[in-house]
Amino acid sequence: MRRDDDSPLSLPESGGGNVAGPQSGRGTSVLGIERGLVRRLLDTLGDPPFSVILWDGHPVEPVPSDPIARVHIRDRGAFYRLLRHPDLHFGDDYAAGRIEVEGDLAELLTVVDLTRQQRHGAGGGRPGLTSRLYRARRNTLAGSRENIHHHYDLGNEFYALWLDEDMLYTCAYFEDPQMGLEAAQRAKMDHVARKLRLEPGQTVVEAGCGWGSLARHLAREFGVTVKAFNISTEQIAYAREQVRAEGLEDRVQFIQDDYRNVTGTYDAFVSVGMLEHVGTDHYRELGGVIDRVLSEGGRALVHSIGRNRPIGPMNPWIERRIFPGAYPPALSETTEIFEPYNFSIQDVENLRLHYALTLEHWLQRYNAHEEEVRRRFGEKFVRAWRLYLSGSIAAFRSGSLQLFQLVFSRPTDNELPWTRHYLYPGAGG
Amino acid sequence: MRRDDDSPLSLPESGGGNVAGPQSGRGTSVLGIERGLVRRLLDTLGDPPFSVILWDGHPVEPVPSDPIARVHIRDRGAFYRLLRHPDLHFGDDYAAGRIEVEGDLAELLTVVDLTRQQRHGAGGGRPGLTSRLYRARRNTLAGSRENIHHHYDLGNEFYALWLDEDMLYTCAYFEDPQMGLEAAQRAKMDHVARKLRLEPGQTVVEAGCGWGSLARHLAREFGVTVKAFNISTEQIAYAREQVRAEGLEDRVQFIQDDYRNVTGTYDAFVSVGMLEHVGTDHYRELGGVIDRVLSEGGRALVHSIGRNRPIGPMNPWIERRIFPGAYPPALSETTEIFEPYNFSIQDVENLRLHYALTLEHWLQRYNAHEEEVRRRFGEKFVRAWRLYLSGSIAAFRSGSLQLFQLVFSRPTDNELPWTRHYLYPGAGG
Repeated sequence: MRRDDDSPLSLPESGGGNVAGPQSGRGTSVLGIERGLVRRLLDTLGDPPFSVILWDGHPVEPVPSDPIARVHIRDRGAFYRLLRHPDLHFGDDYAAGRIEVEGDLAELLTVVDLTRQQRHGAGGGRPGLTSRLYRARRNTLAGSRENIHHHYDLGNEFYALWLDEDMLYTCAYFEDPQMGLEAAQRAKMDHVARKLRLEPGQTVVEAGCGWGSLARHLAREFGVTVKAFNISTEQIAYAREQVRAEGLEDRVQFIQDDYRNVTGTYDAFVSVGMLEHVGTDHYRELGGVIDRVLSEGGRALVHSIGRNRPIGPMNPWIERRIFPGAYPPALSETTEIFEPYNFSIQDVENLRLHYALTLEHWLQRYNAHEEEVRRRFGEKFVRAWRLYLSGSIAAFRSGSLQLFQLVFSRPTDNELPWTRHYLYPGAGG
Repeated sequence: MRRDDDSPLSLPESGGGNVAGPQSGRGTSVLGIERGLVRRLLDTLGDPPFSVILWDGHPVEPVPSDPIARVHIRDRGAFYRLLRHPDLHFGDDYAAGRIEVEGDLAELLTVVDLTRQQRHGAGGGRPGLTSRLYRARRNTLAGSRENIHHHYDLGNEFYALWLDEDMLYTCAYFEDPQMGLEAAQRAKMDHVARKLRLEPGQTVVEAGCGWGSLARHLAREFGVTVKAFNISTEQIAYAREQVRAEGLEDRVQFIQDDYRNVTGTYDAFVSVGMLEHVGTDHYRELGGVIDRVLSEGGRALVHSIGRNRPIGPMNPWIERRIFPGAYPPALSETTEIFEPYNFSIQDVENLRLHYALTLEHWLQRYNAHEEEVRRRFGEKFVRAWRLYLSGSIAAFRSGSLQLFQLVFSRPTDNELPWTRHYLYPGAGG
């Protein structure tokens, strides 16, 4: 057995799970002590409705009746890594198959998230030493390129397997929870357009345009001209191809550059799902960009994952393995975008449950295409992304993460709609 | 002439406006220097469209063509006080009649506010030394009683002269800007009730209930039971009388006590127009009260005057003479209410222009009842309140002040409406 040298717990040299019999774990044997540790951990989690099965193939007792999932810890190394830093190592060992989950992974993670919130508040209370020392990768111009490349340049084909047909990789807006993902993504684009009060002939700048669907949708459906920025090579290539195919080149321009290099003046600024990658150190700079390019009567909308309060970095496994440089801000942290420029917040909407539902659609499609993902990226990748999607569902369901849409304008602009009725053209009488 | 000893400017012992001829102000005479000072001040304000007439009866030149107002400074003392601390002394000297305004006072103040914002950002830029040293009266339990008494116990008859028939002394909600004040105040109560998603039989606690109309409206129209807190003696007496007259005593209870003494558990917490009087030092305490009394699935709404960013205390004249202890927070300052308790912001709506319109209705009614106010309180009071209402119109029109409605709930509550359609039952198709 590999000695886990970093472990703060003293680990005997001898005794592996495979040599101990089923009963050996109940006494003072090494495995027995380890079972006791799991039991204590489960007790502090409030005796959650899942069972844990150690590497000897036996569950830690008592086993809950009707468990929602069974968590298999396949070897002792995974066990001690999990004790030391669960937020990082659960992910790595799940991806490597050293931890396996039978049952509903998203539901399991939701239960764990909820339990933590009940114990400590969102995100498990104040950030521990590890996360306080931990620093997200810096989003300098060069750093941003590297961070964005890591996630978004996995290949358009990969994302096409499980995103909607318009390739929107942000929270959809379900006017009704029963509507399909395609319709909900279109409804999101319409909702954003309405919030921006776009009129034909107006100009829009988009910071972080993904595969370009919002830019094309706004030009096609709302008659505006859009300049859209993105630093991802693969996304920009796809966006340009689509805009040519649709014959919208005269009204949509895709620019492969950082949002900080935006020039010109526009009637609307929009950014959907970019703020998570900006980093709080750069919010003031982002606000300065908006201040520089927004016309006097202009409207701005920022759509971003967020949190109820600042509690340090995101889940470290997600941040390291999936989304380098990502950070979901609390509303209080976003003020650096607005206050230095005297922007006036008009509207904040929290669409948290819409993101949980969006992710459920994505996970379902992802699972249906698992074989293709495996062929291209291998088993570890398949498992890592399954965990990432499931964990994200859990975070939005449990309230660890929020989805904020913020609308703001110049402080002296009095050309404001009287009410928000205009956002709900289909509301019944 | 009275020597203004506090003035940092050296003032000659001799030479009054009344002895100098109209031309004497143009040369190097004292009055000429004073005219030069006004001219420079007007220049820094961007040559605003109003004229200033000094105590000799002559305007400072050049006079703008088609001025929106003419400001008369009646004596030299008022002039130097205005130079020294305009935000405080304009009010005092206007109330005393030493400054007079011919024309639209609200429009004049709006122009000044807008000009300042264009120069420095909202509120005239960073707070000066005076306002940084200045501290709003403390809102301890005893301090709050004194501060609230100062404003709200002027007599119900006084407020009845110019408020709507339901005596709502907070921003109305104009579904249409043409609707009357009475209808707009009822629409506000309905809007608040919808945001709280009240259902018959539920319980509501109200912190700072004014004359009790919201509490009665919620009980009568939405079938809930309300416990409403207020520390103003006169308001509570009026509220109790009204609730008896309506026969709603079994469902509305008015308690003359501080919001910090609220006990029990409720389906909804509501506070309309109290936060301005709470003081940022006490926001965490307010959040603690809400956390203590809100049920698991409860909804909370705070409706308050606010600002785009924290720029020190409110206009000192308003704070000293009209509203002791008042402070309109920036959204970033309100986070102490939410973040320590992991509350989840669901909705923020800015109703700034609704408050400008509400105040226009109040001012119109106030002006129509000026004689009655004069009989009871005298000329100085009449002028002070005219200025207060006009200055408030200006602050909301110019964007110096905002009106925020914030809706929040427990972090793990997933019983949320899918969209905000339910807030707009009358929206067209």
